[in-house]
Amino acid sequence: MSDSSPFKMRLVHLDLKGAPPKVSYLSEVFPLFHALGAHALLIEYEDMFPYEGPLKLLRSEHAYSPSEIQEILHLAKLNQLEVVPLVQTFGHMEVYYLGEGEASRRWLQQGRGSTAGLCLSHLRAVASCVRAQHPALRLLLWDDMLRDMPEDSLAASGVPPLVEPVLWDYSADLDVHGKVLLMEKYRKCGFPWLWAASAFKGATGAHQALTPVDHHLRNHLRWLQVARSGPADALQGIILTGWQRRSWGSNPGLPYGKREHNCWSHSRFPVHQFPEHWYDHFAVLCELLPVGLPSLAVCLQSLVHGGFTPAVKEKVQSCLGISSLEAAGSASEDAGSFPGSNILALVTQVSLHLRSSVDGLLDGNRYVAGWFGPYHRRRKVVHPVMVLHIQPEALSLLARWDAVAQELEVALQRAFYPDAVDEWLEENVRPGLRRLQQLLLDLGEAATASGTLPAGPEPAPGP
Amino acid sequence: MSDSSPFKMRLVHLDLKGAPPKVSYLSEVFPLFHALGAHALLIEYEDMFPYEGPLKLLRSEHAYSPSEIQEILHLAKLNQLEVVPLVQTFGHMEVYYLGEGEASRRWLQQGRGSTAGLCLSHLRAVASCVRAQHPALRLLLWDDMLRDMPEDSLAASGVPPLVEPVLWDYSADLDVHGKVLLMEKYRKCGFPWLWAASAFKGATGAHQALTPVDHHLRNHLRWLQVARSGPADALQGIILTGWQRRSWGSNPGLPYGKREHNCWSHSRFPVHQFPEHWYDHFAVLCELLPVGLPSLAVCLQSLVHGGFTPAVKEKVQSCLGISSLEAAGSASEDAGSFPGSNILALVTQVSLHLRSSVDGLLDGNRYVAGWFGPYHRRRKVVHPVMVLHIQPEALSLLARWDAVAQELEVALQRAFYPDAVDEWLEENVRPGLRRLQQLLLDLGEAATASGTLPAGPEPAPGP
Repeated sequence: MSDSSPFKMRLVHLDLKGAPPKVSYLSEVFPLFHALGAHALLIEYEDMFPYEGPLKLLRSEHAYSPSEIQEILHLAKLNQLEVVPLVQTFGHMEVYYLGEGEASRRWLQQGRGSTAGLCLSHLRAVASCVRAQHPALRLLLWDDMLRDMPEDSLAASGVPPLVEPVLWDYSADLDVHGKVLLMEKYRKCGFPWLWAASAFKGATGAHQALTPVDHHLRNHLRWLQVARSGPADALQGIILTGWQRRSWGSNPGLPYGKREHNCWSHSRFPVHQFPEHWYDHFAVLCELLPVGLPSLAVCLQSLVHGGFTPAVKEKVQSCLGISSLEAAGSASEDAGSFPGSNILALVTQVSLHLRSSVDGLLDGNRYVAGWFGPYHRRRKVVHPVMVLHIQPEALSLLARWDAVAQELEVALQRAFYPDAVDEWLEENVRPGLRRLQQLLLDLGEAATASGTLPAGPEPAPGP
Repeated sequence: MSDSSPFKMRLVHLDLKGAPPKVSYLSEVFPLFHALGAHALLIEYEDMFPYEGPLKLLRSEHAYSPSEIQEILHLAKLNQLEVVPLVQTFGHMEVYYLGEGEASRRWLQQGRGSTAGLCLSHLRAVASCVRAQHPALRLLLWDDMLRDMPEDSLAASGVPPLVEPVLWDYSADLDVHGKVLLMEKYRKCGFPWLWAASAFKGATGAHQALTPVDHHLRNHLRWLQVARSGPADALQGIILTGWQRRSWGSNPGLPYGKREHNCWSHSRFPVHQFPEHWYDHFAVLCELLPVGLPSLAVCLQSLVHGGFTPAVKEKVQSCLGISSLEAAGSASEDAGSFPGSNILALVTQVSLHLRSSVDGLLDGNRYVAGWFGPYHRRRKVVHPVMVLHIQPEALSLLARWDAVAQELEVALQRAFYPDAVDEWLEENVRPGLRRLQQLLLDLGEAATASGTLPAGPEPAPGP
């Protein structure tokens, strides 16, 4: 198949800071990544890396073992995917409070430079150190701290020959002209190579459960425009990010003071430097990897073919084994045959209908709303006839969602570790089930208290 | 002021089966009823009547005392309002299971008649008995059991000379032609007098907190059409009902198998017969009387003037002391000067904004939704920075609604007894306050557990 892409290198980002996939699931998705046109993986290991020695305390309970890491690298190689490790060095905490530490304050007070100068001097020190030990290494740098720096400071800093800025923007309406100007600025400052970072999931809401494919497609179409309009061959490639937890400092597309900033190195070998757990393990999970696969397919194939034509759509549908992209996740029959398509179908069901169906019963059902509201539930009083109206519907709704929850739990367990399964279900499924269970418990107690015949108007003494 | 109404007698219904007003509040609203054009009160005493002897067990804890009943009758007289008591005789339970008792089954098996015949024979027996003891009494009967009976059965039953059917319909789109045909049928069967029953509140939803004035105005405009199209002078008057709890068997305007059926007698003196608590003390409270007063004013004045013209609107606004009907309840300055207008304003605030503002914080606030969802709250884990983002907003929202709740409690206590105040707040206010308190408690615990930052002020203990 022709590759008319202006992005010759396409990396898929695996954000392991939440719901890291089991190796068995990675073995299923790597062939799909390859088939869709990916050349490499950007693996953000976080606490899934089998750190040893003083860093061992950073390891997650479910961290990959060294042999699993070998297995992942082997599987990647089998599928012609280069592995690039993302390592936190100079992350959010450092850059947000830049110049506030004692040594930094002294540096600034001595008139040796501005906060920007301080940042650049730190970057140069870290990059020089890494390059001294690994001369063949190319270091890539998320670019937000560089964007607004004066050209002359950047050019004089000694940083441009050492690192390659990644211009990142995950929004659907990114400013193409602004990006082209930024590329020109970086080139003028002496950066020889530039990279782009888009997003295929995890960039639209901290507790987003379903991926808005259209948003991500538009983001990628804009990046294609940037590549076509910017300095020829300046962009080395594009990283399709797929965030699994959001950074509280980042909210692409919304006005916000502080912006996300990662610093990572690009290598054939993992580089262990200053792992930084500060910012994101506290956020809720957003879209799970299987849920984001249709979006990844659309975005990757649009990059490969330079746009999203009906033929590209056909190709995507065929790769995913779905009859139509619009129907992805909508029903089991159309759920597709890609790895984890059953997870997408069940997550879609839960996200679209669980809460609304429980709200529908608790607030919208006229018997519950009119005869078993908060006052009656707290007092455990109910008209016996209402038990007959409410109980069967609540039981049947609970049975339906219990079945979905069980099926989803089994499906999730195939792809993820128990803590992630527990976290996702706790966040998205169990609150709804508990509301139904509590309604039934209250109803049972009230029914027992009222007996079989109307008890009269006097409610039992309440708590 | 001219009275061009086809309804020469206009009764306002006081449904005391929920939130019965204190006598002091009745003393404030009776002059308003009179000024708006009411001639009488239909008082549905329920458990507020000071029953003695074997019926004493039916009395509510806050039942009016005999001297309070005298006071109510006196206040009514002062305001030229005749008092008509509504007494349950042959209510929902009896008519729903008509023919299922042993004696009734025997009666039917002996071939003495149909279920309709059984009903009519019972009605004739009760009515004859009452009329024998009180020959001057006029008995009115909610008409739903009569509607579908064959004309010849009705005419031959002996019932028409004894009772006066009340044709009732609370819907906004009542079938005018159907009502006219029904009036003609009743006249042919020998009923000399007919009545209409409309609704000014309590007819649109079991847990309706605010009265949809437009619905009730349209209901009354339809009744005006019926009066103008039906047999001349057939209608003796109209009862403007204001339900306080809904009957589970009734749902005007919705298709429904069973329909509401009350049987009551019309007299200058209360008649104590078969009080029936079966159906409605178990329902939640719907619109409180003060909340329904603007609707009552619009409906009564439209009946008085034969329509709702700009002049009628002016008159209503002047009676209620509000600058515009549309603004009623919307803000304290425009809340009006009618009795309980402050209750309307506060109930409006709670109904429109409490739940949505709490939902907005719990589901819509990106810090809560993204970093302190169900999983984090259950685990008592939070990023310390998030405490600073969430706590002030939650505390300020809680303080705002606490203040509203306290103000509303004071206002309600002026008009209602403690059990009704408690019930209304428990149903409509406290669940929202508790959700905020619980969020703050969870946040405090999580912050303490995370240890990095002080937990901050504890929320006040909840109701």
